[in-house]
Amino acid sequence: MPSEFSLTSQVEFHETDMAGIMHFANFFRWMESCETAFYRTLGLPLISFVPGQVVGWPRVNVSCAYRAPLRFNDTVVVKLFVKKLNTRSVTYVFQFRKDGVLCATGEITAVCVKPDAQGGMAAQPIPAEARAQLQVAPESAYTA
Amino acid sequence: MPSEFSLTSQVEFHETDMAGIMHFANFFRWMESCETAFYRTLGLPLISFVPGQVVGWPRVNVSCAYRAPLRFNDTVVVKLFVKKLNTRSVTYVFQFRKDGVLCATGEITAVCVKPDAQGGMAAQPIPAEARAQLQVAPESAYTA
Amino acid sequence: MPSEFSLTSQVEFHETDMAGIMHFANFFRWMESCETAFYRTLGLPLISFVPGQVVGWPRVNVSCAYRAPLRFNDTVVVKLFVKKLNTRSVTYVFQFRKDGVLCATGEITAVCVKPDAQGGMAAQPIPAEARAQLQVAPESAYTA
Amino acid sequence: MPSEFSLTSQVEFHETDMAGIMHFANFFRWMESCETAFYRTLGLPLISFVPGQVVGWPRVNVSCAYRAPLRFNDTVVVKLFVKKLNTRSVTYVFQFRKDGVLCATGEITAVCVKPDAQGGMAAQPIPAEARAQLQVAPESAYTA
Repeated sequence: MPSEFSLTSQVEFHETDMAGIMHFANFFRWMESCETAFYRTLGLPLISFVPGQVVGWPRVNVSCAYRAPLRFNDTVVVKLFVKKLNTRSVTYVFQFRKDGVLCATGEITAVCVKPDAQGGMAAQPIPAEARAQLQVAPESAYTA
Repeated sequence: MPSEFSLTSQVEFHETDMAGIMHFANFFRWMESCETAFYRTLGLPLISFVPGQVVGWPRVNVSCAYRAPLRFNDTVVVKLFVKKLNTRSVTYVFQFRKDGVLCATGEITAVCVKPDAQGGMAAQPIPAEARAQLQVAPESAYTA
Repeated sequence: MPSEFSLTSQVEFHETDMAGIMHFANFFRWMESCETAFYRTLGLPLISFVPGQVVGWPRVNVSCAYRAPLRFNDTVVVKLFVKKLNTRSVTYVFQFRKDGVLCATGEITAVCVKPDAQGGMAAQPIPAEARAQLQVAPESAYTA
Repeated sequence: MPSEFSLTSQVEFHETDMAGIMHFANFFRWMESCETAFYRTLGLPLISFVPGQVVGWPRVNVSCAYRAPLRFNDTVVVKLFVKKLNTRSVTYVFQFRKDGVLCATGEITAVCVKPDAQGGMAAQPIPAEARAQLQVAPESAYTA
């Protein structure tokens, strides 16, 4: 049961801004890409339209702290840690590293939802098949 | 019956890249924003989920020719011209101007679609209410 | 001396995702657009390459809490409040409202920097001309 | 001397729009990512700030024809072909395939530039080191 996952990728040209660095909002796209790859590895659909199954994980709280900039073509390792598992929500911590140096730390709390009768979305318990594959990482793993 | 429309906007910081100019792919977002504002002005839904009504306008061909760069905070006028109206598709020409100078010219051909029985999309004739409000611009309007 | 500012805009089609709502990372682009418009109103350059002047405001901490989704074509009011003014940094609070209803609350802390001798960037005191035009909003303004 | 290159990637959630498919403008970002990976493989800098070397490749003409949509998590192969090599410019053709099926075809013409004396950019001959590694693909390679 994995409690962490990492994704290595390069900074694209279109992700930079005129200051010559990766635009700060794009770090959140990278966190989501890492989460997506994590779920793909587990064989779990992050988004599903199959009736009765998980539909989505809208975000309720996100944050990012930036320490050092990322630049075009930099090879970056994003590491995901499962920080908290509640009945209906999950919290991830993300660390961005370039050449081993921590450049940014992020956090996303997402709620598991399914369609409700009114055409909207309602929080639902995390499905058993997803919960069975997720494990909370020890705090020491991402605070060391 | 309008055959042209214009939208004035500023280049955002996140639209620039490390070369200090608006990233080339973002010109297509501006064309779509102009098309959206045009439809909003006409009171026509560009996208609709109301049964029996227009559902979407997927693009089949797009292009852009760049003459001069746009920079952060530049005030830019995008002008849309209806170039062609077929039974199921429409072609727009877009001109980007800064201080009156033509910086880029784009083109989008979009097909009007509705959901088909298989859960996909099928081309449909442009709805009468939309067609009634669109008019082809004289070629001289955008080639002058 | 203004301590708040608001920007009204529509959600673009390209800002939505397959869940049918504005993608969560795009809220940060909207916060920055609001900040940019605020500075434009004040006549202050957010980014400048004029020697001796402010160069940039890289972000050190950002966050967003989401309460209700924004959808294509929604008219949204983003309101900026100056929360804190330190010697070298500023913290803004942002509120997103649709039809008066609070949909999201964000926060950005940015540091004022100038180029250093090594070709990098170094924190600098917020220039007097900028400081003279900024005022901290009373907490009651954004917690009410 | 390579005349073609391919990149395999997955469609990210943030690249989709409310129609449930990859937004049309994002195909141009994928073309550029493929071009970047191609240059990285060749050991050639696509963008360089080293004095006397290539500075950039601004686009002068781009286009894309869409045949079939791409969806979240689709595995897509983008193939780049060098279509034309002029003294100062290069034209690429790009093909997007999912499960072997052609979904889109794009084209980018880029001009090689360096800084001019006025702080702008001027076209320059493609540097010898880049030209030595590029070869025009036979037309049959991308029209078959």
